[in-house]
Amino acid sequence: MRTTTTEVRVRYSETDQMGLVYNSHLLVYFEIGRVEYMRELGTPYADLEARGFLLPVVEAHCRYTGQARYDDLLEIVTWVDRLRPTRIDFRHQVRRKADSAPVAEGHIVLACVDRTMHPRRLPAEIREGVEVVKGE
Amino acid sequence: MRTTTTEVRVRYSETDQMGLVYNSHLLVYFEIGRVEYMRELGTPYADLEARGFLLPVVEAHCRYTGQARYDDLLEIVTWVDRLRPTRIDFRHQVRRKADSAPVAEGHIVLACVDRTMHPRRLPAEIREGVEVVKGE
Amino acid sequence: MRTTTTEVRVRYSETDQMGLVYNSHLLVYFEIGRVEYMRELGTPYADLEARGFLLPVVEAHCRYTGQARYDDLLEIVTWVDRLRPTRIDFRHQVRRKADSAPVAEGHIVLACVDRTMHPRRLPAEIREGVEVVKGE
Amino acid sequence: MRTTTTEVRVRYSETDQMGLVYNSHLLVYFEIGRVEYMRELGTPYADLEARGFLLPVVEAHCRYTGQARYDDLLEIVTWVDRLRPTRIDFRHQVRRKADSAPVAEGHIVLACVDRTMHPRRLPAEIREGVEVVKGE
Repeated sequence: MRTTTTEVRVRYSETDQMGLVYNSHLLVYFEIGRVEYMRELGTPYADLEARGFLLPVVEAHCRYTGQARYDDLLEIVTWVDRLRPTRIDFRHQVRRKADSAPVAEGHIVLACVDRTMHPRRLPAEIREGVEVVKGE
Repeated sequence: MRTTTTEVRVRYSETDQMGLVYNSHLLVYFEIGRVEYMRELGTPYADLEARGFLLPVVEAHCRYTGQARYDDLLEIVTWVDRLRPTRIDFRHQVRRKADSAPVAEGHIVLACVDRTMHPRRLPAEIREGVEVVKGE
Repeated sequence: MRTTTTEVRVRYSETDQMGLVYNSHLLVYFEIGRVEYMRELGTPYADLEARGFLLPVVEAHCRYTGQARYDDLLEIVTWVDRLRPTRIDFRHQVRRKADSAPVAEGHIVLACVDRTMHPRRLPAEIREGVEVVKGE
Repeated sequence: MRTTTTEVRVRYSETDQMGLVYNSHLLVYFEIGRVEYMRELGTPYADLEARGFLLPVVEAHCRYTGQARYDDLLEIVTWVDRLRPTRIDFRHQVRRKADSAPVAEGHIVLACVDRTMHPRRLPAEIREGVEVVKGE
């Protein structure tokens, strides 16, 4: 699988007194993109966790390339740009659906660990099902 | 023990575009009050949970009696007004420290359950250490 | 208009270490229900605010009648059960979509104010378009 | 001024079902560090905003170097490592106070803008009061 596009609508609770989405919520939007990517791949994250594969975030990078406001309908485009035995690098682009105005770009690295937080190889379905998209 | 008073400073992330603290964060402030109440009682919540006593919220009531804004230093006054074998009712008053202006009043009911979410008697330290404060 | 039903999927960020949705997020789910209720009524909340009608929450009551977990798809049923010149009382029921298991019930009172936080009559579209649903 | 160290205690609401602090909350902790840095510098962020200087985040980078759990008392060390006319780069290190175990490292770039979101020179007190700390 190459990319998924997911919609999310900005909640009032996610705005701040500057009238914009508060910066940390973009990391939550990225997660929503990853969760739907995994679901489309056939490996819902809830199932992975039930089987003992945890995927904590070990690195997060976000560039805020535009502004998102209350009630904006956003699109989160998600893909994988690197796959290692125990790590997976996701890329995210968030844009406003109405006019495709850019909102943010993200790069999130997940580690695969077991319940004791020790490294564990990513499950075969991910290693085989993900199509790594290079460049940007 | 009768009451505890805890301070919390409003974070930027807790404001909304109305320029006030978003309503759901009061429930988080109440929890901070309860956590410090339990710590002063000598039964930190983290210890209780480690011993298999979980205290999920089963009812929450909040009246927003004033306005809290970014960077306000707030005081959370916390006490218990009812104690049953497997339930504990907390009361909270939140006010701005600088001028004692009211912000909110809360009533939170916790159930005591075990790890399988079945009712469990509250631990003896709570049943014996808490001084129920009636009225208001 | 009588009721609206809105879907929301539980985010990982909304869980806590008890493995359940943290209690304050129910207030956010209720807001999502109100926002979609207003949109269906033809008066999106974003438009109201642009016209100078603010609707802060002045009272919130939530009974947690069941458990919501990560990735659960929830339904939020929303209606109005009381309408006063400057106040509107919303009721919400949250249930898991898959099996209609109850999750929470809410009663939220909003005040209508102007930008200086003084009471203001609710706009005519709301006073005329809302169908008050009594009982439950 | 060179660095500030601020304490924050992990809230239950900030944990997730993995039993760790959910990743986006680190950005909130970083903000707490910046706010106290600015206060010590003599330019509280609330005052800056009242004077028409807004400082939205334009880039955020976080490496999760360890684990933070419920009720942990954390220390946030904050400094500035680059200062441009309309930008300021903050660095943050978060560690557990009890044993100095690392939790996270952050690099946050803020833009200085006016209320219409156009670039504006940082106020003189910041340009003159901040001592840029190079390296790490």
